[in-house]
Amino acid sequence: VTRSLETLETPALLLDRARLRRNLQSLAARMTSLGGVLRPHVKTHKSLDVYRESLAAGSVRGITVSTLREAEHFFEAGETDIFYAVGIAPNKIPAAASLIARGCDLKLTLDNLAQARCLAAAADELGVAFKVLIELDVDGQRAGVQPDGAALLEIGRFLAAQAGTRLQGVMTHAGGSYACDSPASLQAMARRERDLSLLAAERLRDAGLHCEHVSIGSTPTAFAIDDLDGVTEVRAGVYTLFDLVMAGIGVCGWDDIAASVLVSVTGHQPERQQVITDGGWMALSRDRGTAAQRTDYGYGMVVGADGRSLGDLIVTAASQEHGIVAPRVAGDAFDPLSLPVGSLLRVLPNHACATAGQFDRYHLTQGTSLIGEWPKINGW
Amino acid sequence: VTRSLETLETPALLLDRARLRRNLQSLAARMTSLGGVLRPHVKTHKSLDVYRESLAAGSVRGITVSTLREAEHFFEAGETDIFYAVGIAPNKIPAAASLIARGCDLKLTLDNLAQARCLAAAADELGVAFKVLIELDVDGQRAGVQPDGAALLEIGRFLAAQAGTRLQGVMTHAGGSYACDSPASLQAMARRERDLSLLAAERLRDAGLHCEHVSIGSTPTAFAIDDLDGVTEVRAGVYTLFDLVMAGIGVCGWDDIAASVLVSVTGHQPERQQVITDGGWMALSRDRGTAAQRTDYGYGMVVGADGRSLGDLIVTAASQEHGIVAPRVAGDAFDPLSLPVGSLLRVLPNHACATAGQFDRYHLTQGTSLIGEWPKINGW
Repeated sequence: VTRSLETLETPALLLDRARLRRNLQSLAARMTSLGGVLRPHVKTHKSLDVYRESLAAGSVRGITVSTLREAEHFFEAGETDIFYAVGIAPNKIPAAASLIARGCDLKLTLDNLAQARCLAAAADELGVAFKVLIELDVDGQRAGVQPDGAALLEIGRFLAAQAGTRLQGVMTHAGGSYACDSPASLQAMARRERDLSLLAAERLRDAGLHCEHVSIGSTPTAFAIDDLDGVTEVRAGVYTLFDLVMAGIGVCGWDDIAASVLVSVTGHQPERQQVITDGGWMALSRDRGTAAQRTDYGYGMVVGADGRSLGDLIVTAASQEHGIVAPRVAGDAFDPLSLPVGSLLRVLPNHACATAGQFDRYHLTQGTSLIGEWPKINGW
Repeated sequence: VTRSLETLETPALLLDRARLRRNLQSLAARMTSLGGVLRPHVKTHKSLDVYRESLAAGSVRGITVSTLREAEHFFEAGETDIFYAVGIAPNKIPAAASLIARGCDLKLTLDNLAQARCLAAAADELGVAFKVLIELDVDGQRAGVQPDGAALLEIGRFLAAQAGTRLQGVMTHAGGSYACDSPASLQAMARRERDLSLLAAERLRDAGLHCEHVSIGSTPTAFAIDDLDGVTEVRAGVYTLFDLVMAGIGVCGWDDIAASVLVSVTGHQPERQQVITDGGWMALSRDRGTAAQRTDYGYGMVVGADGRSLGDLIVTAASQEHGIVAPRVAGDAFDPLSLPVGSLLRVLPNHACATAGQFDRYHLTQGTSLIGEWPKINGW
């Protein structure tokens, strides 16, 4: 039984199934053609149903998570091959150990000896063994050791020497790719991410250390890399839903964006050329990722309830439960009353991970019909 | 039984009970001295426990909500006097009617005839009467009719003439006060909010219309207003928790901020003078409200686990589950290794409403002891 969008209370998070499937198939096809394997990052969608669609699209082995809550949720649904890709905090080690004791093939990451010592001590105390990938810094963005530095081997030797830690390989995330704005810079970043990871793996192996996994990835570099020889897996998350930041980088078009927030028009300020909606930052998130790009979409691009363009409209300002919709280019001709009170609009997100994080379910759509409701998790 | 902060998994939302009580008492005392009544906005904290503390602090009548989910939650806990202070969207009218039918004394707001017509039609169909306050625009920020304009009387007459709508008065929110940065500008904004509301009320009464409520407020103007004669209630929300934006305006000090996010150090980039933590934007929110103020605190001000200053440290950058902590003033002396892996830090939020929105509970603290867990709601 399908329902219409008009039966929803706004704001509501929509997920266009056709676009979702197209996005999943697009990266799966790339992986197949490159002989690569994808370990999708579920942090973007946090939904078992989206994950099952990823499996159906193929080229997938295991999942990546950003929280142990995600690990628990997906493990309880039957996925055992899980990589927790955020450097382990000491207070999370007992929860990680508990998952491993229950049969989860959980892999952890770290970038310093202090973390490695905490893991080794906990392994002794809790009677489990921790599989570990060493994080590499390939773009100066956040965590990770230098691929050509001394710390890599020092940590590797320490992990290999402990009874309770198993060195599995190296991982990195070229988050710097989010600042790329040309095919050439994306390809250079993708090659850098791969080459520095291969260098680190070679250094570990040359030192007689085990390096089975070379795990790299980000959505932009996953679409830009041209050769995956030596890379064992590619991680990406936002490619499932896509968003305006990815469109700004050139990785997708705005009409590939599968997630949107359905909002209602509640009023107008005609003399200010504004439409007022019930989609504020609590629904859209405070993410302003496009502010640093060539085209700033405010708090999101506004399209019709059917997903079609209404011209160049954006959410220019947001308070907690109000959004203001107006032309992106101030002064462009626009009659706010052309969107009467009660009109439904879709807001395409700057950053799908942040916007999805504000909701506990997706309303699955096919055109303007609702064809299902998919729960998702949040929190830690 | 008290536990220590060390027993928590990070990130976790903390609430300092002593600061909370001090903040609640501070505004309650102001209201008492001005002969005013507070209708606290629960959108900031979304917690029955915080609401009960507000009641204990006194000078309170009813609550303000930003979503019907808040209305339902607080109504089910026994509060019947509820003002939903966001312009009503047509698709939410059935849920509002259901609350009224169950005995909730729910008041709605609107600023145009189209909303009023939807309410009148729904009232006939559903057999309920809707109490309505007309929203005024006093600062050009978002919704509301002009206090001296024709629409006010037009809407007022329409509401008064319908069987199913009851005109109750006027309301406004001087959100423009968030951009004030001096006691004089705050006082001017507070007086403007009050005076324009009194003008609108007088115009309705002169036209023979009922205007029982004159409802105004925002945290900055609630602390700046000097005379509430004619005002029936003051609404404020963020004063419960306070945040860096309020400190930047001068409404509180940083050591009045009651909510913080507990994070763990997971690593360092010593050559970049950075500490890496597990407190990313999913925990802190993407709110960058202090970016427009004199002092930009990045994604939040960083203090010790005991709440004490560690010098001028902030979260300079955030990804989904990583935060980077560094001196606010680039180049200031700082040894990242002085905060070893596993150290706990508190991050004071830019905007308490946004940060609290990322969590489903507060861990109540007294110093560095945990003295309780208070659930909260989210969503719509």
